[in-house]
This record gives sequence, C-alpha cells and structure tokens, in this order.
Amino acid sequence: MDQQASSKAEAQDPELRKTGKEPRTSRGRATQKKLLDAAALEFGEKGYHEASVSSITRRAGTALGSFYTYFDSKDEIFRALVQHMSKEVGHHAASAMSAADNALEREQLALEGFLAFTRSHKEIYRIIDEAEFVDPDSYRSHYETVAERIASRLQAGAESGEMRGDMGELEAWALMGMNVFLGLRYGVWNEDETLSDADIAEIGQRANRFLRNGIGPEEPVG
Amino acid sequence: MDQQASSKAEAQDPELRKTGKEPRTSRGRATQKKLLDAAALEFGEKGYHEASVSSITRRAGTALGSFYTYFDSKDEIFRALVQHMSKEVGHHAASAMSAADNALEREQLALEGFLAFTRSHKEIYRIIDEAEFVDPDSYRSHYETVAERIASRLQAGAESGEMRGDMGELEAWALMGMNVFLGLRYGVWNEDETLSDADIAEIGQRANRFLRNGIGPEEPVG
Repeated sequence: MDQQASSKAEAQDPELRKTGKEPRTSRGRATQKKLLDAAALEFGEKGYHEASVSSITRRAGTALGSFYTYFDSKDEIFRALVQHMSKEVGHHAASAMSAADNALEREQLALEGFLAFTRSHKEIYRIIDEAEFVDPDSYRSHYETVAERIASRLQAGAESGEMRGDMGELEAWALMGMNVFLGLRYGVWNEDETLSDADIAEIGQRANRFLRNGIGPEEPVG
Repeated sequence: MDQQASSKAEAQDPELRKTGKEPRTSRGRATQKKLLDAAALEFGEKGYHEASVSSITRRAGTALGSFYTYFDSKDEIFRALVQHMSKEVGHHAASAMSAADNALEREQLALEGFLAFTRSHKEIYRIIDEAEFVDPDSYRSHYETVAERIASRLQAGAESGEMRGDMGELEAWALMGMNVFLGLRYGVWNEDETLSDADIAEIGQRANRFLRNGIGPEEPVG
C-alpha cells in the first residue's frame, strides 16, 4: 500500500476495518458508531462477562440484525471497542496538544486533554483494563502504541533543546504511568466532586512542574 | 489496641486474619502460606474464572479439607491473596529502602526492589489487575495504601530539604504510576531477556534522574 492509499484508509477508521465489518454507507457508519457507544456503556457498567449483545442493541436502539451486520459476536465488538477507545484517546490528546508552543507545554496539554476525556468517559479504565483478560494483545498494543507516541514527542523535545538530551523509552513509559495514574485518581476515582476545568488546569500545571523540574531539592543538598 | 499489641498482631500477618481463618499453629500458618503461594500461581496462570480450588490444593500438595480450614471459597482466597501480595510489595520495598541515605535514594531503592519483586512474581500484575473486577475494594485500597505510603515519604523528604518543598498527593500518585508502568514494561513485558541486577540498577538510576531533575532542558530555554 503506498503512502497515499495508506492515509486514505486511515481516514476511514482502520480500527473498525480490522475487526468488525466495514460499513459501506454513512448511515452504516453511524449505526456502527451507535453500537460502539452503547457497548462502551454496557461493558463499562457490567463488565465483559455480564454484558450481552441484546442489551447493547437495546441501548443503541438498533435491531439485533444490525448488530450482526457489523460484528460477529460480543467478543468482536469488545475488541473493536478497545481499539476504538485507544484511538479516541490518541485523537483527543493530539487535538489538545495542537495549541502547544513547546515540548513541555505539549505534555501538559496532553494530560489535561486526557483528564477531560476521562471525566466524560469514566468507563474507559474499566474497558481498557478488562482487555488485559479478554483481549490481552489489544491491551498490550494500546500501551505500546501510546508509549511510542510519547517517546517520539520526547525525542523531538530533546532535539529542539526544549527537553534534556537523553530521552528514550524509559522516560516515555514513566510519563505514561504518571498520566494513567493521575487520570485514575482525579478523573475516575473522584466521584465526590466533579472535576472542573480549573481543577484540570491545576493538575496539569502541577504535574508539568514535576515533569519539568522533578522533585529534587531546589538547591542541591550536600 | 495499644502500640505494643498492635505491632504484635502485625507480626502475625494481619491480612490473613482479616479474610481467611487465622491458623493457631505454626504448621497451620505454613499450610496457609503454601495455599496462598499455590493460589498466586493458579490465578496468575489461569485468571480468576478458570482457576479452581481443587487445582490450588493440588499445586499446594494439601488436602481439600485443609483448604476449607482456612478459606471459605475461591473468592475468599483470591481476596486474601490480593491483600497478601499488596503487603508483600510493601515489605519488599521497605526492606530495599532501609539502606538509603536520603529521600531520593530511598525512592530509587524502592523502585529497584519493586522491579526485583516483579521479576520473580510476574503474576502480581495479573492478580492485582484482576482484583479491579473480582474485588474492586481491595484493588482501590491497594493503590490508595501505596500512594499514602509514598506521600508520607515525599513529605518527609520535603521536610528534610532533600526534596522540594511542596510534596503532596499528586506527586505520590505520579510517582506510583511511573513505578507501576516501569515494572510492567521492564519486569513483566520483558520475556525476551531476563532482567539482570545490572539492568535493574540502570533502570533505577535513570528513573531517579527523571524524579530528581525532571525532563526539562538542562539550560532553561528562552
């Protein structure tokens, strides 16, 4: 596949093509999207084992037949959903980052975008985490893909001199872990309070200070 | 309970007392420990749903009756195991940290101890992660406990001037996330190569540099 064909295919949502059957019409794509949204709620609330195809179609307001036009089974829509959500997180971060002026700000906006995403998609942790058991390859591939994306951003930051020189895989995994756990703590395990935009900005700034300067003493000791 | 009684109870493995039935003899404690070790392998290999009590007792080389002396069900031994492993991680980190000279070195040794632990207990991620679905309270409590422990270490570091002044919950969750993901990447998803002690030391140093100085530019830009 040449460059042009490949980016054309990407615009058509390749994650739906890999699993699921590709809809041919825009109406078909809308139905498939409705089923994925319903599946996110269903798997997020009940977990994989208790979830059912009939309950997904009920939530989506589609006929059972429509489901099987696009997905072979509960297992298949779960896999498609994990890939879809993984992609969504990426799109969300990319769009949040587009306003950044430099490499460190880019990371701050990526985290803030991710926190905003978890606020409105609390189910994402449960779904991605359950993939470890239902679809281990997608689980691993999700984190490996995110880590690679972060690693190239850090390398770009190192090359432009906006970050220190030796950025690699380890720093990318460490940063990903920070973001995942801040999203868990403040986006998901935060039922008491709604995370406001101001909260998100404060978390973003504070986490970015950690990222920029670390937590070593301001004046080196001894 | 006064201080002395409390530390005496702790020496008797309080996590076994909370779930499971407390063995009265040292032989009983040994049997219970054998069952927990067997359960770690069983749940780690097969996952909660496929695991069975009879297979756990077979691995442990104990009679089925012994199992029910200490645990009521598969569910109960799973819960006891999550609490046991959570405690083990804590003990392991505490013992690794005891050699540290200062607050930042303490964190480096804690990570290195954790990596060494994951190397010999690759099943720990699968078990703790599956608790999110089988025993959500223990899952959350595991991370909240670890985060609190880290937060008090960071606060102590801030007070002693070995870390910067404003250390709180956010920094603790960020650091925990780094460690969890470095353990996942290098301790568990590292099947091709065995993690040597030298690898662990290198990861520990590199992660500690991130922790100490962050990834900002060496000379601040513009």
